[in-house]
Order: sequence, then structure tokens, then C-alpha cells
Amino acid sequence: MTPMEIALQEARAAAARGEVPVGAVVTDAAGQVLARAGNAVEALRDASAHAEMLALRAAAAAVGEKVLPGATLWVTLEPCAMCAQAIAHFRVKRLVFGAYDPKGGAVDHGPRLFHQATCHHAPEVVGGVRENEAAALLRGFFAGLR
Amino acid sequence: MTPMEIALQEARAAAARGEVPVGAVVTDAAGQVLARAGNAVEALRDASAHAEMLALRAAAAAVGEKVLPGATLWVTLEPCAMCAQAIAHFRVKRLVFGAYDPKGGAVDHGPRLFHQATCHHAPEVVGGVRENEAAALLRGFFAGLR
Repeated sequence: MTPMEIALQEARAAAARGEVPVGAVVTDAAGQVLARAGNAVEALRDASAHAEMLALRAAAAAVGEKVLPGATLWVTLEPCAMCAQAIAHFRVKRLVFGAYDPKGGAVDHGPRLFHQATCHHAPEVVGGVRENEAAALLRGFFAGLR
Repeated sequence: MTPMEIALQEARAAAARGEVPVGAVVTDAAGQVLARAGNAVEALRDASAHAEMLALRAAAAAVGEKVLPGATLWVTLEPCAMCAQAIAHFRVKRLVFGAYDPKGGAVDHGPRLFHQATCHHAPEVVGGVRENEAAALLRGFFAGLR
């Protein structure tokens, strides 16, 4: 499985738990998976428990370092400002995301954090990878809530 | 002690541990302290372990809720984009901060997150509270590193 397929699997598992379906994976410079996580805001009763935050912290714990300079973060949805800034703090080398998020995204939308003059670290960014599947998961989840 | 005095105490304790001296406190609607934390990036080997993130998560755990709608976050330094967006996600009512941070702050500087059109929750903001003490702590810490 590719890292984005694992991230999609995490997103589906999150949906099955009643979470907004977003999944994330961190791989090291060699492409090995360091951590994987799904959104867990409901399970952890923690509004900051986005898939990216959980995966980044788990990856840092896995390697025993406070930053992840060679890592790639794969996530099914464009990160919000919290997660995008965390990506900068962890000095992640590359961000690959699935669906674009015009409402909550902060990479290609809203504050476009990595383009701010005060941004101290900007990863390479690839958006739209497996976009349709990631977006369909989210649409299905929110349709089910109505 | 006022909440900001407790936050300053957390910042001093962080400095003594070799952390960038930033401290945070969360109080509930009645003014009771729910959580307090100092920056712990080095201790936890976690680039996201800012005082605000730790205090917000601890406060949510203390009340058993995923959001903190009546709460005030007191922090000695203007929050970065990660922490500012977390404040929005936790639906914190009020943010009181000490020193301004033109380089890394995201409230009155840089992306000015709470003024973005995509911002879904903006707290009341009071900046510059005990600013001199908070800034002196940071200056002292970084002078010691040189």
C-alpha cells in the first residue's frame, strides 16, 4: 500500500468511529512509515486531535527527535492552520495532501501559511493526490449527518 | 495570584528546564484555573508541545469536553499560528497574552488568523498584559544562549 492509501484507510476507520474522516501518515526519508493516525477529536475529546497532529507527534516519538526534517506527511485533506504550522514546527520536508479544503484549509486557502513572510519553514507541497476518494469520504460523512 | 502571574511562573519554570520561556493557563468562566503548562518542546521532544497546546488539552481533559467555550487562555507570548488555530478549534472565549511576537505571532502579526475570512471562531483578544516581564524573560533566555 502507498502511504496515501494507508492515510485513506485511517480516514475510513475514523469515519467508522464517528469522526470526521481524515487520515495521516508520516514516512521517513527512506519512505518507511513512522506513524499513522486518524482524526480522533471525539474519541480523545480533544479539539486539537487532528490526524496530522497525532501522526506528527507519534512519528517524533518513534524516532526520539523533536523535529522530523527528512519526513513526508501524507494527509487526506488540506491541513488547517494549526496543522500547517505544526508541519513547519516539525520541519517536515514534504506535505502531500488529498482533497482541497476551501473553508478550513490554510495551505492553498485562507491564510496560505507557507506563503506568509513570517513562515520560518515551508515544506514542498503536493495537493490533490487521491483527491476524489478523500473528498468522497468527507462528503459521505457529512451527508450522513444531515 | 492572577492567571497571568501563574503563566509567568510557568514560563520561568520552563526557562529553568532549558525551554523557551512561555507559560499558559486556562481558566473557566468563573475564573477558576483548569490547567497550567509551560513550553515543553525539549522535555517531550515534540515540536508541537507549546505551552498553549498543553494547557488547552489539559483543560479539555479536566472538564471532559472536547471544546472550552467559556474559557480564557492566558499566555505570556502572542500565540503562533498552530496555537491560535487551536484556540479557535477549542472555541476559547477569550485570549489574553503578554509579549507581542512580530516574528512568530499569528494573532496581531503574520497571518493574523482571527481576521481571516475563513476563521470560524475568533476569541476576544487582549494583548500586552504583563508584557515587559514576559518579554524580559524571553530576552534573558535568548541572551543566555548566545
